[in-house]
Amino acid sequence: VNVVDPWPPVPAGSLFGLSNLPFGVFSHPAVAGGARRVGVAVGDRVLDVAPVLGDPVFSFPTLDGFLAKGRPMWRETRARLRELLTDAHYRGAVAPHLVARSEVTLHRPFTVGDYVDFYCSLDHAANVGRMFRPDAEPLLPNWRHLPVGYHGRAGTVVLSGTPIVRPCGQRRPPGADGPTFGPSVRLDIEAEVGFVIGVGSQLGEPVPIEDFADHVFGVVLVNDWSARDIQAWEYQPLGPFLGKSFATSISPWVVPLEALEAARRDGPGQDPPPLPYLQRAEPWGLDLALEIAINGAVVSRPPFVTQYWTPDQMLAHLTINGASTRPGDLYASGTVSGPEPGQRGCLLELTWNGTEPLTLDGGSTRTFLEDGDTVTISATAPSADGGRLSLGEVTGTIHPARRC
Amino acid sequence: VNVVDPWPPVPAGSLFGLSNLPFGVFSHPAVAGGARRVGVAVGDRVLDVAPVLGDPVFSFPTLDGFLAKGRPMWRETRARLRELLTDAHYRGAVAPHLVARSEVTLHRPFTVGDYVDFYCSLDHAANVGRMFRPDAEPLLPNWRHLPVGYHGRAGTVVLSGTPIVRPCGQRRPPGADGPTFGPSVRLDIEAEVGFVIGVGSQLGEPVPIEDFADHVFGVVLVNDWSARDIQAWEYQPLGPFLGKSFATSISPWVVPLEALEAARRDGPGQDPPPLPYLQRAEPWGLDLALEIAINGAVVSRPPFVTQYWTPDQMLAHLTINGASTRPGDLYASGTVSGPEPGQRGCLLELTWNGTEPLTLDGGSTRTFLEDGDTVTISATAPSADGGRLSLGEVTGTIHPARRC
Repeated sequence: VNVVDPWPPVPAGSLFGLSNLPFGVFSHPAVAGGARRVGVAVGDRVLDVAPVLGDPVFSFPTLDGFLAKGRPMWRETRARLRELLTDAHYRGAVAPHLVARSEVTLHRPFTVGDYVDFYCSLDHAANVGRMFRPDAEPLLPNWRHLPVGYHGRAGTVVLSGTPIVRPCGQRRPPGADGPTFGPSVRLDIEAEVGFVIGVGSQLGEPVPIEDFADHVFGVVLVNDWSARDIQAWEYQPLGPFLGKSFATSISPWVVPLEALEAARRDGPGQDPPPLPYLQRAEPWGLDLALEIAINGAVVSRPPFVTQYWTPDQMLAHLTINGASTRPGDLYASGTVSGPEPGQRGCLLELTWNGTEPLTLDGGSTRTFLEDGDTVTISATAPSADGGRLSLGEVTGTIHPARRC
Repeated sequence: VNVVDPWPPVPAGSLFGLSNLPFGVFSHPAVAGGARRVGVAVGDRVLDVAPVLGDPVFSFPTLDGFLAKGRPMWRETRARLRELLTDAHYRGAVAPHLVARSEVTLHRPFTVGDYVDFYCSLDHAANVGRMFRPDAEPLLPNWRHLPVGYHGRAGTVVLSGTPIVRPCGQRRPPGADGPTFGPSVRLDIEAEVGFVIGVGSQLGEPVPIEDFADHVFGVVLVNDWSARDIQAWEYQPLGPFLGKSFATSISPWVVPLEALEAARRDGPGQDPPPLPYLQRAEPWGLDLALEIAINGAVVSRPPFVTQYWTPDQMLAHLTINGASTRPGDLYASGTVSGPEPGQRGCLLELTWNGTEPLTLDGGSTRTFLEDGDTVTISATAPSADGGRLSLGEVTGTIHPARRC
């Protein structure tokens, strides 16, 4: 017997209230024979969407089909789900399709088409500049004119919880002429916010900045794991490659943009004013409060709202050359760092290139990650009901290198 | 009536003889109701593979399923096709499934998973270094230690023949402080060879260099269109992005590695010797003779055999950090340039950064591409029958910029 109480099925103080309703993919032995299905998180439960809405797109093993449906369908679906979960009239029909979140297995929610990583935090870019080019301007000449970005490896975007095996590779020890080979000794995190494209665009057709919300379905949290020593040796002149491509973790619940209406803010002022195709038409700064914990100790609280380039600008830039997009394309903000030391989004900055170790709970210290460390990035945002909502979390544990 | 003569159906001197048999995807109004199907090019014809081999994987609209089958099946399929196309006993059964190549529509042969572009030509890298860093060593310190590479945009890999719309974007005019916006005025080509992964690999499991041919199915020609002005402004510090992502063209016929046995050569000597994971186990240098034509005039003949890093080294490097691969992943060599001026693989080098214009047929000159220009890259290689085989061609015509 599936006892659902209270109704609506949201305990007081839940960050997964009726204003959130993020989408994911789950399986449960008692649902559809254990097959992967589209689910919506509500309170401490997951709603099996297919039987209550009767649309076969929700029986798919990914969100891919739903993502491609477009904004009117996304809105209608959310509105109908809220109605079904609120009106006592539907309680008897809906309750049998709610399962405990603690009992489900979550899966990668969508097929990642292309993965692009930006570099949108002025504080992050400036800190990196100060560390590695101490005698020059912290920001490179292009930085304030365009959201710098590059393509990452889509095939190694993994679900939160996937073990992260320490990568092997070439790195050049300080002062050495040539490289040595072995496990990365400067394994880092990058706390980021990712944007999931629902409706793609055609080759040769830029997406105007004002069309952002017609294309982007929602938001996930991203940990763009980085091997700083591998990256430092390889990245000239074509950018990061193996220092990043071993794994990028994403959170399981995709929070629709529509759930973030109350979190929308004007983006920060921009000087110089960007070129016309990058000029903001609507406020798409987002007041997301991130938190980074290592082995349970909070080490940073990066604010997304201070990011210089906003996600509508990122999409307009990504497509201005006519590059097409597809449902499931993912683009991430780059490391989210705020202006304060306790708001930095990676260990490189938090330990100032390893020179200022962090102290964790229990007194142990870290410059970069050690085997066995678990990193969890979470975030919350203001919600339409006046409270807050959760974007869930992305977590991963470092496993020792193999085959080095 | 389908009159097939001669038998085997290969005219004298054909570069698509029984030692070639490349795979592609075609449609023809008279075959399977015009659906996309797997085809093999033979002589001037395309063989509809599904009915003659009876395996449903050849009725797929892409090569994806066949690619994933693995090397024993790839070999067995080729051997059986040669038998069917040679033995007069099968003529009656096979001939009805041959259609004229001139009558088919070709389609993108496989779903591109991740696209990686390398930078494997020493002559290309050194020429670029001499142009842009005239007072420094032409090669950066890492270049001889690893095949430098980066991820490109998989979603904009298009079939040969797709129109190439001149991209718009930011570029900084010489001497200016900031960028202007408009159509690229330095639109270039990069003649490359691409390697198509058939059998993927698991996350955390590097592909040993000796396993190259168990994973890579075959070869396509690649034109990695490049907007040099956009690229120059954007690429610091994370590498090329919009200067490349507007389009990458590939040839329609995937030539199996097995067809290139007679083209295998030792790779060039490498100094310093590479790290153990990059040390070659077998000769995978390939004697491919490329040719670049602009509006029908041959402007360069780049040799692939002189490339410093060989494709087995590229795959070993791509996966040494544990990055997984998937069927349909594509990695390209980077611009193929030989040591002679007439062997350079891009206009940047052929015109020495625009300072030495090329003269085409009819006396017109080019530094970079003009609207209406058609670029065709083709290649041949020695074949097992003592003659030569064709890798087909990749072509594209520049269309004027839109929406700038």
